[in-house]
Amino acid sequence: MDILRLDYNYLMAEAVGDDQGIREIDLDFVRKRAGRFARDISRQRKAGELAFLRLPYDRAVQDQVAAVAQTVKARFRNLVVLGIGGSALGTSALQQALHPWVYNVYPQKGCPRLFVLDNIDPRFVADVMEVLDPSETAVCVVSKSGSTTETLAQYMIFKRWVEEVEGRAFKEHFFFITDPEKGPLREIAEKEGYVSFPVPPGVGGRFSVLSAVGLFPAACVGLDIHGICEGAARMDSICRVDSMEENPALLYAALMYLMVIRKKKNIHVLLSYSNRLYGLTDWYRQLLAESLGKRFDLDGKEVHVGPTPIKALGVTDQHSQIQLYVEGPKDKVITFLKVEDHGANLVVPEGVEDHQALKFLEGHSLGEIMEAERVGTEFALKKAGRPSCTITFPRVTPFTVGEYIILKQIAVTVMGRYFKVNPFDQPGVEEGKAAAFALLGREGYEEKRREILEGLEKDLDLRI
Amino acid sequence: MDILRLDYNYLMAEAVGDDQGIREIDLDFVRKRAGRFARDISRQRKAGELAFLRLPYDRAVQDQVAAVAQTVKARFRNLVVLGIGGSALGTSALQQALHPWVYNVYPQKGCPRLFVLDNIDPRFVADVMEVLDPSETAVCVVSKSGSTTETLAQYMIFKRWVEEVEGRAFKEHFFFITDPEKGPLREIAEKEGYVSFPVPPGVGGRFSVLSAVGLFPAACVGLDIHGICEGAARMDSICRVDSMEENPALLYAALMYLMVIRKKKNIHVLLSYSNRLYGLTDWYRQLLAESLGKRFDLDGKEVHVGPTPIKALGVTDQHSQIQLYVEGPKDKVITFLKVEDHGANLVVPEGVEDHQALKFLEGHSLGEIMEAERVGTEFALKKAGRPSCTITFPRVTPFTVGEYIILKQIAVTVMGRYFKVNPFDQPGVEEGKAAAFALLGREGYEEKRREILEGLEKDLDLRI
Repeated sequence: MDILRLDYNYLMAEAVGDDQGIREIDLDFVRKRAGRFARDISRQRKAGELAFLRLPYDRAVQDQVAAVAQTVKARFRNLVVLGIGGSALGTSALQQALHPWVYNVYPQKGCPRLFVLDNIDPRFVADVMEVLDPSETAVCVVSKSGSTTETLAQYMIFKRWVEEVEGRAFKEHFFFITDPEKGPLREIAEKEGYVSFPVPPGVGGRFSVLSAVGLFPAACVGLDIHGICEGAARMDSICRVDSMEENPALLYAALMYLMVIRKKKNIHVLLSYSNRLYGLTDWYRQLLAESLGKRFDLDGKEVHVGPTPIKALGVTDQHSQIQLYVEGPKDKVITFLKVEDHGANLVVPEGVEDHQALKFLEGHSLGEIMEAERVGTEFALKKAGRPSCTITFPRVTPFTVGEYIILKQIAVTVMGRYFKVNPFDQPGVEEGKAAAFALLGREGYEEKRREILEGLEKDLDLRI
Repeated sequence: MDILRLDYNYLMAEAVGDDQGIREIDLDFVRKRAGRFARDISRQRKAGELAFLRLPYDRAVQDQVAAVAQTVKARFRNLVVLGIGGSALGTSALQQALHPWVYNVYPQKGCPRLFVLDNIDPRFVADVMEVLDPSETAVCVVSKSGSTTETLAQYMIFKRWVEEVEGRAFKEHFFFITDPEKGPLREIAEKEGYVSFPVPPGVGGRFSVLSAVGLFPAACVGLDIHGICEGAARMDSICRVDSMEENPALLYAALMYLMVIRKKKNIHVLLSYSNRLYGLTDWYRQLLAESLGKRFDLDGKEVHVGPTPIKALGVTDQHSQIQLYVEGPKDKVITFLKVEDHGANLVVPEGVEDHQALKFLEGHSLGEIMEAERVGTEFALKKAGRPSCTITFPRVTPFTVGEYIILKQIAVTVMGRYFKVNPFDQPGVEEGKAAAFALLGREGYEEKRREILEGLEKDLDLRI
């Protein structure tokens, strides 16, 4: 069985120096809390809280999703996903991890191509509508609340688009994933009779990838959703242990917290040495930023906390960001994602070119060169006093991807406890949302509209 | 003519408060230097330095590139670019900005599909090789030094791959872009008789997109390279003015410098409200990080400077990062990229769904909704005391993309002067490169190899 591993040697003072690294005394500083947090989570789990932890075990939903996906595969050549944030990032991440990069150019036989429309850029949306045939296209509409502006606007456009070609048969093209009981999309699903799946109560967008939100599109394009859930369940069982040094989620949370609080490393780089895992760094970017980026702590104290996540790709970003990471401000901690077996063996052939500068590469596989560059980068960072750790994927499979998802979700939940913030809300997005409503003339936002317009009048006119 | 505009109202103390914003006194603090830097650049230009500024005017190279591109278009169905960092980011950015998102699924008639292989992940490379037919594939090999490890390894693999099918005709498939006189790739190009283009002396990778490095692949996929260069030349002429308030590159550099030095905002977010401009944020990420992320200043003093660039996408990242940007630490400054005319008019149709929550969207175009969300986000950030500025693209065209490129390249060159660092070198990547060579057993790196292996022996064994 492929189990993820966490190597944290280079986060320690022994590797990067007392100034930059964690000492045994720092681990002692958090160990007691780590154990308490593990027991808290275990208690919450028993009380039916932390609903995202039940998703890997919900075989009924997984089977239902798989069954409906069969009908989509049989009937449609394209699947368009309308969703944004937590309704899209998991789907894109699973697709990128488990299908070839060129999937849409050469889709898997018997599966539709996948277009995740996670934005309302009109050119972006039109580009897709212009080339797809509505009669061959299924549309999956995803919004937990059922009231996401971008998704509702897209839905209305796509409904008209399908209806114009298919007439009353438009219904068969739509699949809704939303709250089981309330919200506009739920009401519309009932009224129109769409096939729909629930987002379980208590599961927020960024914790929902293992519900139908992520699993239904994944199953439609032929991914092994049971494998994903089995991996998640396995990692969940590993992360139930109380002891920090035996529980990777607990350990990772503690280490990252110490990096912020003791070492002033508030920029958290996720550096994936695998193109397939790059989508998962984008998914984690939301998980970390929205969960921990908070103005108030649980006691109502103004704290303005939250590490800033950065997604990066090795070796590519060695030629873009490593200069900064090695020589710039000492404000970063790096988590490498390493893959042992990439599942493709490309070896630099011998005798292709008789040139001295190329000789040393002959006989090496691209996987070997990539790992040499990763180790070289890790070494250079360490030598410059820049801490890093490594999460190793033996292989990139549905199982290991599932493990990674639950590992990170539990780790961020624990980090929330260290920072004393609520990792499940996002109050900071309300102001911008209300302002957009006001600008679009929505009823009930007249006051906000006045506030914005008055503000604009007072603006200087600084522009060239 | 479409000219980019810079709006910086919300960087000012009047908008975001004295603590977070720039005051008149701050502008006075930099104004004299701004003028001096403009004159320095003008002098360097006359002395034949800053070679990247001559690229937009090199009509001879542009015509040559366009002519060869015609033969590629006529002969090949696929173009693979082997290059990394500055040899790939510009190409990807131009493609994303000026072609539909689905270009490779539905390529433009008479143009090849484009695969930029900017990594050596074996699965990523194999995915492409498995689906392409070598006899229909052109391979463009890009490396300024001609000795980039990743590119050389890829070249050997692709040469064998083409040769096995095409025999001696393999030569017609390869196009080299490298130093005009020296380096392994130049020597190989001469020996094999490949068609090749020079990277002009003095133009580093991240400043090379307007040379054949970016223009040749662009021309092959049917982009208007003359339009790109005309826009760059136009912006270059605008950025020759001495007065800070009339020169957008000078102004942007000064504002960002003040944000770092006076306001402690060392995280620079580029937030593109356009999918098409997202690739350009990735391109800028290299330009900023490698140019300014430095350990030593020009006097040899250890400074460890450099803003950390972040690429973000609106509205998508409103559902991922805005929570952190609005409520988290006050360590960020945001540059919006705004597009006035997206070139696609998708309107939410009326009467599609009789539901109260959807009504307010009817009749609005996706472009309007997107701009309302951008302004709403700008407003929320301002209200939370988070400074931002906006670069407006009237439209996304070859001309405006060219403008943007030269605007940013000049701005970063000026920022280098404020921070007193050399924006054209990248000494911090040497250590990792040498370590990788050592691990791959390259001759001359035996000492480094011993150092690494001894270090590994001393490591603790902290992993789970």
